Amino acid sequence: MNKIITIGREFGSGGREIGKRLAEHLGIAYYDKEIVQEISKRTQLAESYVHQIVEQKSEIFFPITVGRTLHTGGSDYMLRHYTSVYAEQANVLRDMAEQSDCVIVGRCGDYILKDQNPFRIFVYSDIASKMARCREKADEHEHLSDRELEKMIRRIDKNRAKYYRYYTGQRWGAHANYDMCINTSSLPIKELAEALAHLFNSKL
Amino acid sequence: MNKIITIGREFGSGGREIGKRLAEHLGIAYYDKEIVQEISKRTQLAESYVHQIVEQKSEIFFPITVGRTLHTGGSDYMLRHYTSVYAEQANVLRDMAEQSDCVIVGRCGDYILKDQNPFRIFVYSDIASKMARCREKADEHEHLSDRELEKMIRRIDKNRAKYYRYYTGQRWGAHANYDMCINTSSLPIKELAEALAHLFNSKL
Repeated sequence: MNKIITIGREFGSGGREIGKRLAEHLGIAYYDKEIVQEISKRTQLAESYVHQIVEQKSEIFFPITVGRTLHTGGSDYMLRHYTSVYAEQANVLRDMAEQSDCVIVGRCGDYILKDQNPFRIFVYSDIASKMARCREKADEHEHLSDRELEKMIRRIDKNRAKYYRYYTGQRWGAHANYDMCINTSSLPIKELAEALAHLFNSKL
Repeated sequence: MNKIITIGREFGSGGREIGKRLAEHLGIAYYDKEIVQEISKRTQLAESYVHQIVEQKSEIFFPITVGRTLHTGGSDYMLRHYTSVYAEQANVLRDMAEQSDCVIVGRCGDYILKDQNPFRIFVYSDIASKMARCREKADEHEHLSDRELEKMIRRIDKNRAKYYRYYTGQRWGAHANYDMCINTSSLPIKELAEALAHLFNSKL
């Protein structure tokens, strides 16, 4: 069985960078944007639309659940899209995990791949650190005021938590669901990735 | 300011062993039994009695709180003992943290020493792993049946959580209160301590 490392992460906590560096250190595959590309290919939906759904960036995206029944608050075709994206996401992750050792960021990988016994990491940090990291990246959010940026980060994390809850029935970020939870507020990502690689090299 | 590493840990999770190995790797002080000895000296209470209080092993030990008022459910002299042990515990930890770099296991060190900006680790594992670890140690619990052992572990952890809550106002094991949470169910302690030492050597 391949060795799979999954990384759940709060928005702006540096989880993606940890995953990328860790995969580089270990010389194993790293799947992030490739997941969206593959889902897009299989569902025939536009990459940007799939990205919006799986990244939980949209306000309207998140399904309201009554029991385990899915309600998007949107139209029927949206409901169909969400359902097919969720289904293909699971298939894509399983296919990737079967190909080789890999690091998979987000997308409920820890839960979807639980039969592959992944090493499950959760990355988080305080709001100030997350805001600072978003500012450093100077990406599409650079026009936001501090207040708007904080609001956006909290909204995305809230959506991720709701999505994880819906998909897994578990609480996002609760330590029992992970092998290691890492607070990047005061830890340098580079050294952290090195230490994790050290652990995996001796453990694998 | 000295570099302080605090380790909160579920009973039987191996937190103490991680702390000891980490301190050895880093060549810094490790405080565990020394804390009890020092409290005993300062309060003039027997070591075994202090141990029972700070380790939360006793059923009758734990204070019931109404707001922040302390009720032990025991006699007045017990209340006085608990209060003086709590107070001296904080003094002892602060004195130790002022002496040199060190690893401090348990005793709400993460909270008591927060002004020293400690690196706060929380160690946990699933109940099966904790039971297995207790069995391996073959200590004073070896006469217990599996059911009794599980019950004892859950009781001690529950008391630790209540104690932490009382003392800090925070939830024991909630990831936001720590810099790293480590699940030892599937991680080898030896390699884990090495990886942590690697991280601290490059970080310190």
